[in-house]
Amino acid sequence: MVRMIMHGCNGAMGRTITGLAKEMDGIEIVAGIDVNPVVLSDYPVFASLEECNVEADVIVDFASAKAVDHLLDYCGAHKMPLVLCTTGLSPEQIEKVKETSKKTAILRSANMSLGINTLMKLVQDAAKVLANAGFDIEIVEKHHNKKLDAPSGTALALADSINEAMDNRYHYKYDRSTERVRRDENEIGISAVRGGTIVGDHDVIFAGTDEVITFSHTAYSKAIFGKGALQAALFLAGKEPGLYDMQDVIG
Amino acid sequence: MVRMIMHGCNGAMGRTITGLAKEMDGIEIVAGIDVNPVVLSDYPVFASLEECNVEADVIVDFASAKAVDHLLDYCGAHKMPLVLCTTGLSPEQIEKVKETSKKTAILRSANMSLGINTLMKLVQDAAKVLANAGFDIEIVEKHHNKKLDAPSGTALALADSINEAMDNRYHYKYDRSTERVRRDENEIGISAVRGGTIVGDHDVIFAGTDEVITFSHTAYSKAIFGKGALQAALFLAGKEPGLYDMQDVIG
Amino acid sequence: MVRMIMHGCNGAMGRTITGLAKEMDGIEIVAGIDVNPVVLSDYPVFASLEECNVEADVIVDFASAKAVDHLLDYCGAHKMPLVLCTTGLSPEQIEKVKETSKKTAILRSANMSLGINTLMKLVQDAAKVLANAGFDIEIVEKHHNKKLDAPSGTALALADSINEAMDNRYHYKYDRSTERVRRDENEIGISAVRGGTIVGDHDVIFAGTDEVITFSHTAYSKAIFGKGALQAALFLAGKEPGLYDMQDVIG
Amino acid sequence: MVRMIMHGCNGAMGRTITGLAKEMDGIEIVAGIDVNPVVLSDYPVFASLEECNVEADVIVDFASAKAVDHLLDYCGAHKMPLVLCTTGLSPEQIEKVKETSKKTAILRSANMSLGINTLMKLVQDAAKVLANAGFDIEIVEKHHNKKLDAPSGTALALADSINEAMDNRYHYKYDRSTERVRRDENEIGISAVRGGTIVGDHDVIFAGTDEVITFSHTAYSKAIFGKGALQAALFLAGKEPGLYDMQDVIG
Repeated sequence: MVRMIMHGCNGAMGRTITGLAKEMDGIEIVAGIDVNPVVLSDYPVFASLEECNVEADVIVDFASAKAVDHLLDYCGAHKMPLVLCTTGLSPEQIEKVKETSKKTAILRSANMSLGINTLMKLVQDAAKVLANAGFDIEIVEKHHNKKLDAPSGTALALADSINEAMDNRYHYKYDRSTERVRRDENEIGISAVRGGTIVGDHDVIFAGTDEVITFSHTAYSKAIFGKGALQAALFLAGKEPGLYDMQDVIG
Repeated sequence: MVRMIMHGCNGAMGRTITGLAKEMDGIEIVAGIDVNPVVLSDYPVFASLEECNVEADVIVDFASAKAVDHLLDYCGAHKMPLVLCTTGLSPEQIEKVKETSKKTAILRSANMSLGINTLMKLVQDAAKVLANAGFDIEIVEKHHNKKLDAPSGTALALADSINEAMDNRYHYKYDRSTERVRRDENEIGISAVRGGTIVGDHDVIFAGTDEVITFSHTAYSKAIFGKGALQAALFLAGKEPGLYDMQDVIG
Repeated sequence: MVRMIMHGCNGAMGRTITGLAKEMDGIEIVAGIDVNPVVLSDYPVFASLEECNVEADVIVDFASAKAVDHLLDYCGAHKMPLVLCTTGLSPEQIEKVKETSKKTAILRSANMSLGINTLMKLVQDAAKVLANAGFDIEIVEKHHNKKLDAPSGTALALADSINEAMDNRYHYKYDRSTERVRRDENEIGISAVRGGTIVGDHDVIFAGTDEVITFSHTAYSKAIFGKGALQAALFLAGKEPGLYDMQDVIG
Repeated sequence: MVRMIMHGCNGAMGRTITGLAKEMDGIEIVAGIDVNPVVLSDYPVFASLEECNVEADVIVDFASAKAVDHLLDYCGAHKMPLVLCTTGLSPEQIEKVKETSKKTAILRSANMSLGINTLMKLVQDAAKVLANAGFDIEIVEKHHNKKLDAPSGTALALADSINEAMDNRYHYKYDRSTERVRRDENEIGISAVRGGTIVGDHDVIFAGTDEVITFSHTAYSKAIFGKGALQAALFLAGKEPGLYDMQDVIG
């Protein structure tokens, strides 16, 4: 049984993961850390990692970017594997993640869901066949009306994944309304739709002569990111130091 | 039997309409006009309207924008009803269409297909209920990789149709990648996808709390525009002077 | 302020509605009824309507079919308006609903969401134009893998809605794998997809010559049914006896 | 330059391929065979293979099932590679294809398009990850209202492809309307939609907990099958005897 500490246990994702962990075999939350250290479930909650006296095999983090520096220091010092799900890290923090991964295993991904990470592999294989046969590639993502950034990190990660497989031949195009030019075959158009409470839809479109293939992912709740985080924790416990991502988990 | 002149009869759309007219009851092409006046079907072809000595009830035009001025002069002088399908008219030409429609019946639409024109009405009714209940509206259109303008005239016509029904409360948003702001509830986002030989897809999306309604139109060939033009010609023959559009045809 | 009793307040939908009511203006849950009468929120909970001593304007029911007979008796006797959301009623119960609606206002619908009910109206308008122009109509619904019945009540309600607008010309087709015959133009094909935890997707497809129009509704959570129930309660309080449905609410 | 004989050159697909061959590098139609041996293009047309005196490297067939026996005899006797696109073969003819492929190279596929054949590979990879993680698999196909068989051969080929990769654990389910049972995790539901002139849409749906991945293929014209046939002919010319399919072409 993998013993896990939930870092940010009383936030929305922390509570979702607490619920999901009860249904998953092989893993158990043995302690929680939260700035608001009230006990909401059946494990003890501490205000900081230093106060936590419970032995564990892995930490899953869904707290806040400003807590990441201290978290990395702690995991590096204690050789504690870390599934780092908090987003919005600064370039300095991303550098620190790399440094820390020399001392302990760290897993970090643009998107934690099994579905999106499976798609990231498949669109690479598709691109090798279809783009070489002249198909154009476009991505359309849809998110709720409160999302500030566009396009989504996941849309960019899907484009980057294709680009990596295709010798980086593509640049990205976000707006076609300001010019009258024919589409460049070396571009991936990325469109961002915003509305309602859409959790996250991503379409990767391969458009050829008289045929179109579309790979679509629809998220119905944020629980899929929590489930992916638990799968990542199961995978990461006991691993050698290094930087991992969800591609390693779905193997 | 409505007697029709096909203006631009040897172009791609002219030939498509020639084929479709044979299968449609109540209408017959009695002559064609084309800068390249070869006979490709069973009706006579003339280099200009002046040379055409065949009596007719209506002209359908799918020629070129530069031929439109002369066409309007002719139709105005002869009180000949005109289905004007050529796009890319200048503001002056659009003004001239209005003037000419005081003398003869002219029908002009952003999109000639029955499906799109039905959609234009339905999204108005949908907006009155859904937008008033807090749903956000977005449009995604997809066209082939040779299309120069974006968004499509049809996407804009769909947005305008909604706006007209909603007291013009909306402005249009074509790009969200350059800023980090929350979506304005008075905006309609319009995204343009380009790839392969896609004839024309249009999605009008109403996104609310935990539910999304999408109205999608897919064109499989340009024949739908030709069929709509023939329906428009059947409708327009014998009508009083005035400016009509496909909404009048579908009633 | 409309005072509402939540009948079945401690079930999944009862708790969802309790949460939603706090965010909605003009309505307040003043008491709950549940076979398990524990207090989970800020209103008193009773084991039966008879024990409830709180004055109210409307009852919303999401309990169980076997509790419906008693509920109808109570509402009829007390002239209490009732939003009846429980499904799976027997023909006798449906008859009893009609009888009781002579004494008090009752609202009942196949689907409580604003989106689906808006769609029910729009597909009628679409059918009048498109089916008369030769478009074929098909419905595809998708639900989670635990749903036992197929097709869904909502898919059938959408088909019935179209049929009602089209002089009942259509019969329904659920399986095409057992015969080799050409599609009958007076049929609506209804397909049922089952998988994962899909809350409920419904596509109404109008397929014509070279163009297809699709009306799609996606539910992301069951909260949309609770929200619709609250809107219905707001509408129903104070209404004359009679049988109402969500079409009256979105009017 | 590969020299190709078009068998069934004056049928709809034969004429489509004649047009496509002019735009494709490396291949040339040097003769046509048709029961109606009129010359419609720039190559000679013969009533039978025996009368054809033009040297060639490969035959592409889009004629009729009843002509297949003689065609196989001819190709076997002359060691002539054959791209066999005619469908609806009898079990005896399929057996004869196998026998003949011992003497000459024969390529035969359920669907000739590059897109569908790429999809067949990708859904295998997807199934290995997703089905093993508990995702349910469903297929929805859409075709025109004149198609007699259901589900389509391509839908079945997609299901078979998945099944082959998953140790044949799946059986297929075509209708859920006649029983009230929970979905079996070892079933692939296959739904057939019929309407208008839809050329062919195929969706392969992987539905998991709170996320759905869909692989969609849309055909806009039958030209994609002709293009695939030409690519197959280019591939097959000069190959050793044996039975090939489009998977070998996209390899």
